[in-house]
Amino acid sequence: MPPRSDFEEMWRDLAPVGRSAASGGYFRQPWASAESELRAWFVSECESRGLTVETDGIGNQVAWWEPACPLVEEGAQRPPRAHGVLTGSHLDSVPDGGAYDGPLGVVSALAAIDLLRERGFEPIRPLGVSVFVEEEGSRFGRACLGSRLVTGATTWDQARELRDRDGVFLGDAVDEAGLDPTQGLLSLDRVGTFVELHVEQGRDLVDRDVAVGLASEIWPHGRWRFDFAGQANHAGTTRMEDRHDPMLTYAMTALAANKQARLAGQRATFGRIAVEPNGTNAVPSLVTAWLDARGPSDDALAEMVGVIAKQADERAGRDGTSLVVTPESVSRSVAFDADLAARLAGLGDWPVIPTQAGHDAGILSDAGIPTAMVFVRNPTGVSHSPDEHAETADCLAGVEALADVLAELARPEAPA
Amino acid sequence: MPPRSDFEEMWRDLAPVGRSAASGGYFRQPWASAESELRAWFVSECESRGLTVETDGIGNQVAWWEPACPLVEEGAQRPPRAHGVLTGSHLDSVPDGGAYDGPLGVVSALAAIDLLRERGFEPIRPLGVSVFVEEEGSRFGRACLGSRLVTGATTWDQARELRDRDGVFLGDAVDEAGLDPTQGLLSLDRVGTFVELHVEQGRDLVDRDVAVGLASEIWPHGRWRFDFAGQANHAGTTRMEDRHDPMLTYAMTALAANKQARLAGQRATFGRIAVEPNGTNAVPSLVTAWLDARGPSDDALAEMVGVIAKQADERAGRDGTSLVVTPESVSRSVAFDADLAARLAGLGDWPVIPTQAGHDAGILSDAGIPTAMVFVRNPTGVSHSPDEHAETADCLAGVEALADVLAELARPEAPA
Repeated sequence: MPPRSDFEEMWRDLAPVGRSAASGGYFRQPWASAESELRAWFVSECESRGLTVETDGIGNQVAWWEPACPLVEEGAQRPPRAHGVLTGSHLDSVPDGGAYDGPLGVVSALAAIDLLRERGFEPIRPLGVSVFVEEEGSRFGRACLGSRLVTGATTWDQARELRDRDGVFLGDAVDEAGLDPTQGLLSLDRVGTFVELHVEQGRDLVDRDVAVGLASEIWPHGRWRFDFAGQANHAGTTRMEDRHDPMLTYAMTALAANKQARLAGQRATFGRIAVEPNGTNAVPSLVTAWLDARGPSDDALAEMVGVIAKQADERAGRDGTSLVVTPESVSRSVAFDADLAARLAGLGDWPVIPTQAGHDAGILSDAGIPTAMVFVRNPTGVSHSPDEHAETADCLAGVEALADVLAELARPEAPA
Repeated sequence: MPPRSDFEEMWRDLAPVGRSAASGGYFRQPWASAESELRAWFVSECESRGLTVETDGIGNQVAWWEPACPLVEEGAQRPPRAHGVLTGSHLDSVPDGGAYDGPLGVVSALAAIDLLRERGFEPIRPLGVSVFVEEEGSRFGRACLGSRLVTGATTWDQARELRDRDGVFLGDAVDEAGLDPTQGLLSLDRVGTFVELHVEQGRDLVDRDVAVGLASEIWPHGRWRFDFAGQANHAGTTRMEDRHDPMLTYAMTALAANKQARLAGQRATFGRIAVEPNGTNAVPSLVTAWLDARGPSDDALAEMVGVIAKQADERAGRDGTSLVVTPESVSRSVAFDADLAARLAGLGDWPVIPTQAGHDAGILSDAGIPTAMVFVRNPTGVSHSPDEHAETADCLAGVEALADVLAELARPEAPA
């Protein structure tokens, strides 16, 4: 068993940061005070383990445990370029989210290092612990922004112009957090494998009655902004037949999205909306709503979103409103390295299951880094909510599984 | 004709205050900077006319033109108690509203005073110009709050606990605006008649091809808060059939409200919404939406709102969500003084039409003060929108009509 006290102590330290007393939920907004506190906590935890943290120009962090006797390539004087094993997750949250999504992977990574050391394990490859910023995309609307920037999937010149809900540019938010993007971004040059541990966000492990599983793939998923434009007017005096009310077009679209997702066995959600002018006695001029949609294949997803947009457009015609649909981020399906998953699954008799949630692991996998994910059981399957949960015993099983995975990947006999 | 230059100059002075360069709309939020500027403008305009402004403890304002030779009751040494004639409107606006709703009545009142003086008119009753605060209810959710407080329809102890969208208490907002509620409220003791001029918010005058009309009644109307509660969850990983998504219940309710209003020949609008947590990748935990509904009779309105709430509740049962409906303000029908309207209609061959919009005039009428309204034609009927408009010629016709009305009410031969 892992050292229970280490895990629990770290968990207790994190519990109050960014927590709402009212709901019990968390809002750890990127580049704001709660997240700065978490970044400082990470530095302090790593330093207490003798690991030096590198924080890059936008707040991504990594700390490496360097091997005492590094692996040297046959015939070469130094280690191969990408021979390190990286693990970690993120510390930001959605608004009013749970405690586990993100932090469980970071705390478990540190606890797994403790466990490996307790076991007397000596890696011959560098073992890194990482934290990527703005994984949720809750502030600037781009999920996995930190890992996208690090892998080059998004450029800083594109990202710096993003604005949050208050109109603050990303570039200014990063500045205000005391970071300096001109200092550059984390390099992934030495990363040969990436492993992310995460609380499960569904109930596959509950249904299978096991504490730990591995990921096979991430469903394709994306965010589309629907701008429904109409004409503001007085809610009392304007005859119903004289209106161009975009709220009606939106309402029908939200119902259509739900129906299409059920029919197709996919997922479609309108969870975020902004209304102009948002006055009780005014017919709105503009309703902006974001569709989150996910499907088992790129084609199936594109087809479902197309049907929803078409139905919305037809309704706009009847309402005398207009619709513009803008894809904000669309991630194609990610198949994690199958050989790697098969090799790791044998370590613990862990099921290999798909996930519908995006993760930094998907971005690193897309960038060509062999990547695996470890899931920890979530009794209700609820996530992005104060009700998100994992039992401590399952978390400790997760730490042990992660330690086993890291030992497998960083051991002397491991395949390159 | 009224002195065109006075009206146009005042209109030009007000044009930039609280205007959004982006939309061309106005947000003159009560107890905030734009409204303070308007209050100071009103004081300055009155003083330049030799009228002294009284500002009460919450920001309501009145300025009286005292008669040189006041009316004295037969057999008495002093004027009767409620013999004054008050006219005016409000200066606050809905978010992104138009220029005319409110200010047209205040500017026209001052221009009508100018016109009466130019005509050499000498009132024998005091003629007052008033401005009531928070008419729109756009900040604290209670329409006609200033006039409700002055008439005692709402008490200060009830009102001070109201909160705006940022959680600010009304009491604190009033303090911050430099006002002191302990200074007391305007007295209406000397008000014998109230007349409010207002831009029309529908198209009755357009259909009748006249510039000016009078009000017969205000439809009953109200605001009901619908709290749809569900369970926050991950938008990607939660199976559609495992959700309790309050957005769906809301969406169906918005469509049902529209349908019921069409069927009943009434008005029903959901123009304001707040979503928790309002994250793209989270199924909401709570959707709060405000229903604005209006009908030709108290019973018809209550029946329609009942049907909407029942349909919403049934849908909540199917969605696994729950619904609480809270009336926030409900105004019963207001029939303006019929004798007064008939007497005034003869002055200008003005049609007498109903309105579906609430006004301070309705509150004063409810308080037993004989009250009339003068409407000025709005070419598109659009209101609560940057597109709200009235032609200058029609505005000047409104000023002339208002001057005629005031002269009729304040002349020596006027009935008491």
